Amino acid sequence: MLERSLIQQRGFRNVTAADGTVTGFQLRLRNPNYRGVAGSLIDGVQVVVDGEIHPAEASSWTLQGRTYTLDELRASTDVRWPLDETATVTVPHPGGLTAGTHRVEVAVHLRRPYIPAVAGPSVFRASATATVVPGPAAGDGLRYGVSLYSYSGDLYTSMSLEDAMADIADLGATGIEILGEGNIPGYPRPSADWIRDWHRLLDTYGLTPTNYGSWVDTAMWRDRDLTAEEGRAQLETDLRLAKDLGFTSVRPKFGVVSPDLEPHPIWQSAVERVLGLAADLDIVICPEIHSPTPIRHPVTQGYLDFIERTGSKHFKLLIDTGIFQTAPVDDGHEGFEGKKRPPFLEPLHVPMADLVEVLPHVHFIQAKFFEIDDRLHDLHVPWGEIVPRLRDAGWSGWLSSEYEGRREPYRGRDQVRRQHALLRELAG
Amino acid sequence: MLERSLIQQRGFRNVTAADGTVTGFQLRLRNPNYRGVAGSLIDGVQVVVDGEIHPAEASSWTLQGRTYTLDELRASTDVRWPLDETATVTVPHPGGLTAGTHRVEVAVHLRRPYIPAVAGPSVFRASATATVVPGPAAGDGLRYGVSLYSYSGDLYTSMSLEDAMADIADLGATGIEILGEGNIPGYPRPSADWIRDWHRLLDTYGLTPTNYGSWVDTAMWRDRDLTAEEGRAQLETDLRLAKDLGFTSVRPKFGVVSPDLEPHPIWQSAVERVLGLAADLDIVICPEIHSPTPIRHPVTQGYLDFIERTGSKHFKLLIDTGIFQTAPVDDGHEGFEGKKRPPFLEPLHVPMADLVEVLPHVHFIQAKFFEIDDRLHDLHVPWGEIVPRLRDAGWSGWLSSEYEGRREPYRGRDQVRRQHALLRELAG
Repeated sequence: MLERSLIQQRGFRNVTAADGTVTGFQLRLRNPNYRGVAGSLIDGVQVVVDGEIHPAEASSWTLQGRTYTLDELRASTDVRWPLDETATVTVPHPGGLTAGTHRVEVAVHLRRPYIPAVAGPSVFRASATATVVPGPAAGDGLRYGVSLYSYSGDLYTSMSLEDAMADIADLGATGIEILGEGNIPGYPRPSADWIRDWHRLLDTYGLTPTNYGSWVDTAMWRDRDLTAEEGRAQLETDLRLAKDLGFTSVRPKFGVVSPDLEPHPIWQSAVERVLGLAADLDIVICPEIHSPTPIRHPVTQGYLDFIERTGSKHFKLLIDTGIFQTAPVDDGHEGFEGKKRPPFLEPLHVPMADLVEVLPHVHFIQAKFFEIDDRLHDLHVPWGEIVPRLRDAGWSGWLSSEYEGRREPYRGRDQVRRQHALLRELAG
Repeated sequence: MLERSLIQQRGFRNVTAADGTVTGFQLRLRNPNYRGVAGSLIDGVQVVVDGEIHPAEASSWTLQGRTYTLDELRASTDVRWPLDETATVTVPHPGGLTAGTHRVEVAVHLRRPYIPAVAGPSVFRASATATVVPGPAAGDGLRYGVSLYSYSGDLYTSMSLEDAMADIADLGATGIEILGEGNIPGYPRPSADWIRDWHRLLDTYGLTPTNYGSWVDTAMWRDRDLTAEEGRAQLETDLRLAKDLGFTSVRPKFGVVSPDLEPHPIWQSAVERVLGLAADLDIVICPEIHSPTPIRHPVTQGYLDFIERTGSKHFKLLIDTGIFQTAPVDDGHEGFEGKKRPPFLEPLHVPMADLVEVLPHVHFIQAKFFEIDDRLHDLHVPWGEIVPRLRDAGWSGWLSSEYEGRREPYRGRDQVRRQHALLRELAG
């Protein structure tokens, strides 16, 4: 699916020549007309970025894999701008655009022979705030990924799995995190065709499967809880499916029995029964340390004790960066009836020293966030504290974007680009 | 793709028992959670229609092809509500809902074991205005279709071709009209796979291809006009492609040379050269009578003279109902720079007598419209005059919805349902 806006977020980037010189920038446009048109009917686009005007004659157009000057396009005979394909406009601009958000305005001119000349030229205007993400920082040991959770609401309504992968690759990330029961059609038994297609798409977009989110719904039925054996069976199902899809960790979310996310008592017994399987499959099982549970807390200590007692190398911690929140989120939360701020979303502001202490046991970090403004300032999570600590500690796992802010259409996609621009700059 | 709203427009309908009794209504819901869930975690949905409350216990659920009472669902072990599939909720309501728009509110209750009990039950609320379309009127000679033009902006951004077909079938229409350069990927040479898929989808959704919109862009290049031979070649391309896809008429839109849509002078020569081909393919070529050109006008007369002169049975008129407009549309028009109301959108209010006079030469009617309100009143086009005249005249061609109002997401889909509810009632 194309993005609804004429100006696509995906594909907004600087252009680098073979000698490393940054020569300009590119943006992709959706055809604004109700029909596809021959390339010769395109009469150029004026692009304005942060108030600077780039006239139509300056830009080149890439359509159906070939690139044209505006004059070449006007004289063309064998290229079209279909409704279901974007055009890429390349704008000369030595040095390119700065990393971060930019105000982009376009005026696309089309000639429409079937509309009387008195109606005037056909001009389609659009504007957007779009984000340039810098390339990976040199020598940066962190690995960058995105969780499909970031695209909740957009996936299956305006975005396919392939769109999500294309978005992730476009912002320079290489890891993809999924929710098992959520992003796998036919879960827990996807078709062989789907699995084949999954691996083909990973290859096409150069992505590595990272973490697989699963659930052990201990309160599955109203009249009884899951037994430890049922919990084990659920874990086995997800471990095996995760392996088939190439994932290297599974985060099981057990049902909880207290306000501070104490997992249901079957958890130890259920996990212990699959530690051997996890070792065979070489998958790390990672319980999630999630607000309102900080690092110094009996629940986290319980997981550390389990590691020590079992001696397993296939049970580690997953940190959700919501625990470092310094400011509350008051945007409302879907499904929380009549509560503006659920108690477990009070900011915990866990100190960095606590993170550093448990880092040797941390396998994965979900880079939870809610809002990053136009100046790349995160309103709630202190990345300027987190990223340097991770780098200084030599931690080299995945930082996986987990956008959890307002679910307006396309907002997650835009916010994830902003987060990667911010993280990449901090790590540089 | 699913519709973004939890309450899907598609699938909102009355339910009829085997003996013909209307026993209730159905609506489809998108899963409101960020993950798929086991059916046992669904705790019911309260449905309120026009203020009347239907409690959760009353409704049954259809998930993955099987139907459950709420108690059965709570005890279920082998059914899920995935993120990419809708649930169908059937609400008992003897006599069903009246045809037309209804205010629908839902409160979906889910149990989420991984969220602490203190956070309270998870309730997801949504509301929408949705339209029940009545079944075809008995003995009604008119045939009902939809043009994909109605879905401009939604197609390729939130709606696939299959979604469009499913929408059209869901509202009880049987005809599909397309734009050649617009709805055919790879136009003018779609892949054999795409053509095969097109026919498969027609079969799945019980749709008949009706009219194929084409263009002869006489001002294709800035320095010269198309020759009659080039115009012929374009017509041949579209006629052959239309035939391959099963269409029975082609509407070529020639470039115009006057404010009142006088076609470029090559039109007669170009069309005459393909009349034999059109006869061989049994496709009717239909120029469009479109505002600001009324029926009593030299342009229309030129088409009638052409019919008489050539004696062809494969050249007829296509009427766009915008010519019957009684009120102006002031919603703005994409691409018309700085003009609130392009001159050719002044209401023409063509009299019905003129329509009746040319009806023997009319092959197809594009049911152009802009806005139908919650009471099924069209603000601009007098369907109460048009439909009875067509019926009285015994005209039995296609009435093909062509929504041209504001291009807000999903608006076209909603408005087309309203138009069919209105047309079906008038024809009944």
